[in-house]
Amino acid sequence: MKAIKRIGVLTGGGDCPGLNAVIRAVVKTAIRRYNVEVVGIINGFHGLVNDVMVPLNEESVAGIVHRGGTILGTTNRDNPFRYAVEKDGELAFEDRSEQCIQNLRKHNIDGLIVIGGDGSLNIAHQFHAKGVPVVGVPKTIDNDLSSTDYTFGFDSAVTTATEAIDKLHTTAESHHRIMILEVMGRYAGWIALYSGVAGGADVILIPEIPFDLGKVCDHIRARNERGRKFSIVVIAEGASEKGGEMVVQQRVEKSHDPIRLGGIGQEIAHKLELCTQMETRVTVLGHVQRGGSPTSADRILSTRYGSSAVDAVMAGYFGHMVALRTPKIVPVPLTEAIEMKKVNPQGQLVQAAKAVGISFGD
Amino acid sequence: MKAIKRIGVLTGGGDCPGLNAVIRAVVKTAIRRYNVEVVGIINGFHGLVNDVMVPLNEESVAGIVHRGGTILGTTNRDNPFRYAVEKDGELAFEDRSEQCIQNLRKHNIDGLIVIGGDGSLNIAHQFHAKGVPVVGVPKTIDNDLSSTDYTFGFDSAVTTATEAIDKLHTTAESHHRIMILEVMGRYAGWIALYSGVAGGADVILIPEIPFDLGKVCDHIRARNERGRKFSIVVIAEGASEKGGEMVVQQRVEKSHDPIRLGGIGQEIAHKLELCTQMETRVTVLGHVQRGGSPTSADRILSTRYGSSAVDAVMAGYFGHMVALRTPKIVPVPLTEAIEMKKVNPQGQLVQAAKAVGISFGD
Amino acid sequence: MKAIKRIGVLTGGGDCPGLNAVIRAVVKTAIRRYNVEVVGIINGFHGLVNDVMVPLNEESVAGIVHRGGTILGTTNRDNPFRYAVEKDGELAFEDRSEQCIQNLRKHNIDGLIVIGGDGSLNIAHQFHAKGVPVVGVPKTIDNDLSSTDYTFGFDSAVTTATEAIDKLHTTAESHHRIMILEVMGRYAGWIALYSGVAGGADVILIPEIPFDLGKVCDHIRARNERGRKFSIVVIAEGASEKGGEMVVQQRVEKSHDPIRLGGIGQEIAHKLELCTQMETRVTVLGHVQRGGSPTSADRILSTRYGSSAVDAVMAGYFGHMVALRTPKIVPVPLTEAIEMKKVNPQGQLVQAAKAVGISFGD
Amino acid sequence: MKAIKRIGVLTGGGDCPGLNAVIRAVVKTAIRRYNVEVVGIINGFHGLVNDVMVPLNEESVAGIVHRGGTILGTTNRDNPFRYAVEKDGELAFEDRSEQCIQNLRKHNIDGLIVIGGDGSLNIAHQFHAKGVPVVGVPKTIDNDLSSTDYTFGFDSAVTTATEAIDKLHTTAESHHRIMILEVMGRYAGWIALYSGVAGGADVILIPEIPFDLGKVCDHIRARNERGRKFSIVVIAEGASEKGGEMVVQQRVEKSHDPIRLGGIGQEIAHKLELCTQMETRVTVLGHVQRGGSPTSADRILSTRYGSSAVDAVMAGYFGHMVALRTPKIVPVPLTEAIEMKKVNPQGQLVQAAKAVGISFGD
Repeated sequence: MKAIKRIGVLTGGGDCPGLNAVIRAVVKTAIRRYNVEVVGIINGFHGLVNDVMVPLNEESVAGIVHRGGTILGTTNRDNPFRYAVEKDGELAFEDRSEQCIQNLRKHNIDGLIVIGGDGSLNIAHQFHAKGVPVVGVPKTIDNDLSSTDYTFGFDSAVTTATEAIDKLHTTAESHHRIMILEVMGRYAGWIALYSGVAGGADVILIPEIPFDLGKVCDHIRARNERGRKFSIVVIAEGASEKGGEMVVQQRVEKSHDPIRLGGIGQEIAHKLELCTQMETRVTVLGHVQRGGSPTSADRILSTRYGSSAVDAVMAGYFGHMVALRTPKIVPVPLTEAIEMKKVNPQGQLVQAAKAVGISFGD
Repeated sequence: MKAIKRIGVLTGGGDCPGLNAVIRAVVKTAIRRYNVEVVGIINGFHGLVNDVMVPLNEESVAGIVHRGGTILGTTNRDNPFRYAVEKDGELAFEDRSEQCIQNLRKHNIDGLIVIGGDGSLNIAHQFHAKGVPVVGVPKTIDNDLSSTDYTFGFDSAVTTATEAIDKLHTTAESHHRIMILEVMGRYAGWIALYSGVAGGADVILIPEIPFDLGKVCDHIRARNERGRKFSIVVIAEGASEKGGEMVVQQRVEKSHDPIRLGGIGQEIAHKLELCTQMETRVTVLGHVQRGGSPTSADRILSTRYGSSAVDAVMAGYFGHMVALRTPKIVPVPLTEAIEMKKVNPQGQLVQAAKAVGISFGD
Repeated sequence: MKAIKRIGVLTGGGDCPGLNAVIRAVVKTAIRRYNVEVVGIINGFHGLVNDVMVPLNEESVAGIVHRGGTILGTTNRDNPFRYAVEKDGELAFEDRSEQCIQNLRKHNIDGLIVIGGDGSLNIAHQFHAKGVPVVGVPKTIDNDLSSTDYTFGFDSAVTTATEAIDKLHTTAESHHRIMILEVMGRYAGWIALYSGVAGGADVILIPEIPFDLGKVCDHIRARNERGRKFSIVVIAEGASEKGGEMVVQQRVEKSHDPIRLGGIGQEIAHKLELCTQMETRVTVLGHVQRGGSPTSADRILSTRYGSSAVDAVMAGYFGHMVALRTPKIVPVPLTEAIEMKKVNPQGQLVQAAKAVGISFGD
Repeated sequence: MKAIKRIGVLTGGGDCPGLNAVIRAVVKTAIRRYNVEVVGIINGFHGLVNDVMVPLNEESVAGIVHRGGTILGTTNRDNPFRYAVEKDGELAFEDRSEQCIQNLRKHNIDGLIVIGGDGSLNIAHQFHAKGVPVVGVPKTIDNDLSSTDYTFGFDSAVTTATEAIDKLHTTAESHHRIMILEVMGRYAGWIALYSGVAGGADVILIPEIPFDLGKVCDHIRARNERGRKFSIVVIAEGASEKGGEMVVQQRVEKSHDPIRLGGIGQEIAHKLELCTQMETRVTVLGHVQRGGSPTSADRILSTRYGSSAVDAVMAGYFGHMVALRTPKIVPVPLTEAIEMKKVNPQGQLVQAAKAVGISFGD
C-alpha cells in the first residue's frame, strides 16, 4: 500500500451542526498525528467536479469547534455520477466521476474523506468501487443511518426542538390550547420521538407509526376530562394518517422543505380544531433545527468521527465509514452503512414513551 | 380615602413571559411592605365574572420568578362589559360588569390590579369609570403600548426570535439560500425590528413600512453580486406590500394566529423564489415567542412593575397604569396609556438599521 | 412471587439534573402500565428511617420533566446502616435498617426504587441482602459508575461546563490570557474531559493522568510561539501533579466542596502565572454544574431509566440496577454496578483529544 | 471644518460582549451612509502608539454581530500618556501621545472613535484636549458610567449571572444549603443587584451598601423558620462589611481579578457557615461574565452606539461620548460622561428588591 501524504475532505448534503468540528479534527489529526497534509474541497462534490480546493492547516480550523455550518460549504444537489449540465439549451445529466478522479490525482490526494448523509455516502461508495480510496463520516440530522448509534447533529436538532416544546408548554397551559410543533423527519421520526419525550409532549406522530386521527382526538379529550386542558402535539413532517390520506405524494425527493403545500402541521391543526373544538396553534421550526452551535455531545462525537476518519484512512479502511458503536468508533463497510434506520414501534423508547402517557395515534 | 386591606390581581389576554414575576412582586410587596392581603382572580376576567378567586400568600408565589406562563391562568376572550352567553340556543352578549363589582365587594377587594394588554387595560379603564379602584400593569409581547418605554415579555420574545435568526444564519451561509423568519407583530413591527437588527438580518418587513417586493429582490441580488450568497428576511406577520396586495383583510381581530391563510412568510417565500431564483425556506415561530423563562431584563422589569403597582394602589393612583420612563416607574392615566405605539420609520433605530445595510423594502 | 401492588421511590445523594424526570417516569409507568401505586419517600434515606412518605399520582408529577432538583428532596448524609444520632450528648452511629424495613412493610411497599450514586446504591445493595426487594437507578453527575454507558445528569453538567468554556474563549482571545476553569470530578475526570474536548480547551487535567506542570507550561509557551496568545485550561477538582504535590490529602470523603482550601484552580493559576508570565484568571463553577434544567438527552435517559426501573421491579429483578447498554436499558446486578469507572488514558477519547492538540500534562 | 474622509476605531480596556457589534456598525455606517473609510487600530492604545492598524471594510465585519470578544483586540494596560517602557533595565513611564497623534496624521485619520470604559475614555478626553477629533463609546460591563442609561455588555453579564443563580436554585432547594455566587463589581454593584433580583436571590451584598453579617444571618435563619430551608446569596466582589473588616485594601486598581486573596465569596461562606450552621457552597463566575455571545438587547444597543458614533464624528461632536437617554442616543461631553454611576440605596430598584424580601444586610 502506498503511503498516504495528502488527504482531501468535503462536506455534502444539508447543513448540520458539528460539520466544522469534524473538519477541525480531520485537519488536526492528520497534521499532528500523521504529519499528513489536508486539502479542503469547496461546496461538496461541486468542488470535486470543478476543481475548487484549498489547503487547510491548523490556522484554518482554529476556533471553529463550536460554530454551526461548514467552512467548506456544501450543496445537496451535485452528484458527479449524474451531474446536471445544460446541453443545447436543455438540462442533461452526465457522468463526471472521471473528472473528479483526475482532480484528486492532480492534487496528489491519496485519501478522500466524505462527510455526508445517505446521498453523499452512496456517491462515496460508487467512487470506492472505481478505486478511489474513500472513507465516510455519517452526517444526518435525522439520525436515520443504520450501523451507527448516533449521527452528529442529531442531538443539536433534538435540543432545538425540545427548547421549542418547553416554550410552548407555558403558553399552552395558560391558554388551554393545542400546540402543534412540526419538526424535521420525512422518512424517520427520530427528532419528533426524542424531542417529544424530552419535552413531555402528549402526542407524537411519526412516519413509522401511521396514526388514526380519531385516536389522537380521544387522547386529547381524555386529557381534558382529567383536568389537563392543553395538549402538545409533535409531528414529524413525514407522518401520515392511517389509510394514507395525509401522505403527500409530491414529496418524492429527500429534502426538507417546510414551505411547500402548507405543511402537515397545518393540516392536522385544522382537523384537530374541528374534532376537539379547542384553539390550536402551529409552529414550523424548519431550518432552525439545522443551525446554531452544536451541543457539547455533538462536538465530542464530531471530534471523534473526524479523528477516527483520519485513522481509518491511514489504516487503509477504504470503502468504510466510521460509526459509533458505543463506546467505540469503528469502521464499517459503506455498503452496510447506508441503509436507513427507522424508529422501531416495538422498541424500548417508544414503549417508554407510551408508558409515560404519550399517544402515537395508533 | 378608605384604607386598603385587600388587593385583587388578575392576568388578562395572551400569555407573556414575566407574568409570574409580576404576580410574585404584587403579593410580596403587598404583604411585606403594606401588610395587605392579596386575592388571585383565576383565568382573567372570566374569574371576576364567575367569582373564581384564591387567596395568595408568599408560599403561593415562591420559586416562580423565572417561570413562563401565569399561575392565575388567563383568557383573551372574556370581556365583562360584553360577555358571551348562550341565550335561547343563540350566542348573545351581556354586560356583566355589575356582577364583577359585586364579586369584588363580596371579597372585600379594595384595589384591583389588572395585568394586561390594550384589551384588558380598556376593560380596566371602563371599570374605573364605574368607580372600581383599579391600577393597570402593561403587558404586551409586541411592545406596542405608548406611555411606557418597554412592556415586559418583549425582550424575551425578541431573544427567542434572535436565537432563531442566529441558527438560520449558519445554514443560510452553508447553502446559499434565502431564509425567512415570520415573527409576531400584527400592527406593530417591534419584534421583527429588534430581532432583525440583533440577528444581523438583511431584510426586515414590518407593518409600519409598506414594502416594494421588487426592492427586496434588488437588495438580495445586490448582496449576491457582492459575494454574499444568502439572505435572512425577518417578516412581521402584519407586514404588507405597497399597493396593499399583501394585506390580509380577514385579520380584523388582534390575535396572533399563525395557522390561518398559510401565512405571509409563505407568500413572500414563494414570490422571492420566483424573482431571485434562489431556494427559500420558511420558519414560523408562532407561540414559541410567548413562552419560556423570561430574560433577566424582563424579570427585573416585571418585578418593578408588580411592586410599583401595589405602591400605586396604596397611594390611590386609581385609573392609572404603571409605566417605565427610564430609569423610573411612574403612574400614568389609563386613558393615555392604551394608545398604540408604532415603529417610527424616521426614528433612530430604523435609521441605524438602514445604516448597517438592512433593507425595509421601501 | 407475591404480586407487586405498591412501589416506593427515593432519591439519595447529591442533586443531579434529571431526577424529576426519573420520578415522573416511575410514577406514570407504575400507574399506567401496571396499575400499581407509588409512594414517594422524602429526603432520601432520612425519610425511610423516619417514615416521611407521600403518595404520588400523575398530578404530583405533571410538568416536572424539565425541572432541575428533586420534588422528593435528597440528602447525602443519612445512611440507615450507620445512622448518626446524639447519645448522651455525643455523636453516635446506629443501625436503623430494621426500622426502615418496618416502615416499608407498614406502607405495604412491595418494591423499592433507589435513585442514587455509589453511596446510595451501596445502601440499596445492603438492603437487598436483608431481603428488601430493591432496584437501583444510577445517578452521578460524574459519570463514574461502571456497568452503564452513561449516568443521567452528566450530559447536563458537561453542557454547563462547555458553555462556560465557550464564554472564556472570547475573553481569553481578546486579552492574551490563560483562563482556568475548575470543574467537578474528584476521582474521575469525565466532566473535565468531555467539556474540555467540546469547548476546544488547550489543556485538560484529570485525576486519572497525573500531570507535570512543566509540560503544561511548555505546551502553553509553544502555543504562544505559534501566535495563539491565549490558553484555556480545564481542571477536574481531583487532578494531581506528578510526584503528588498537588494531592490534597484532606479530601477524604467524596463530596464536592469547592470552598475548602482555596481550590486546585487557584493553586495552578498561581504556578502558571509564574512559569508563563501570562495573566491568569480562574472560574470555579461549583454547584452550577448540578443545577438547572436537564438537557434533552438527560431527560430521555432519565425517562427510560424510570420506566425501566418499574419494569425491573415488576419482573422481579431485585438487587439489580437499570443500566444503559446502548441502545438498550438492561438490569445488571448491583454488585457489579457500583464499581467506579475511570477515564482510560489509552482510550479513544483521550487519544482523539491528544490528536486535536490537547495536552494532559503527561 | 475639514471634511472627514477616514475614521479610526479602537477598543480599550476589558473584554465586553457587544464590542464586535459596535465595530461592525461603525464600519458599515461610515461606508454606507457617509462613504468614509475606516481603519482599525489593533490592541487598543498599544496599536495607536506602535502604529499597528488595518483597513476595515464590510467584508471585515461580516458575520460578527453575535460574536463575543473584539476582532481588533484590546489591552487594559497601555496608556499613551503614561506608557510603560524599559529604560536602562528599569521600568519607566513616558508620554507617547505625540507619537499617537503623528500616527493618526500619517494614516490621514480625521476622526477617532474610542470604545472603552472610564480609563479609555479618560485617555480619549486627554487626546481631545490636545486637539484630536475623538468621539467615545461607553463600554463597561459594570454599567457604572454616568450619563448613559446603560452600557453595552451589562445585560449580557447580568444574563450569565442570572443563569447561574437559576441553576443554583434547584440544587439549593434539594439540599437545604446556602449557595453563594460571587460576581463582578468592584466599585458598583449593578451586576449583583440586577442578577440578584432577576434570579430571585435572598441576599444581595454590594459595595454601595455596607452590610452587617449578623443581619444576613438573621435573614437566613428567619427564612429557615418559615420553612424555606435554603438561601441564595449574591455578592459583588467589592462588597464590604460595615466597620470595614471585609474591605481588602490591596484592591487598588480597577481590574477584575477573582484569583487574588481567596475572594470575598469564600470569606463570607466561611462566616455564614459558622453563624447559620448550614452547609455553604461558593461559585466564582469570574471572566465567564465577560464572554460569550451578547444578548439581543446588547447587540441592538451596540449597533446603535456604533452607528451614532459615526454620526457624531461626521457632525463634529468631538470630545463627546454617545450615550443612551432612552429612547434616544445623544452626544454628551466626555467630561460629564466619565463620572462613576453607583447604585442608589434609596433608588426604586433597591426598594423593589427589598419589597420582594431581599436583604442587603443593612
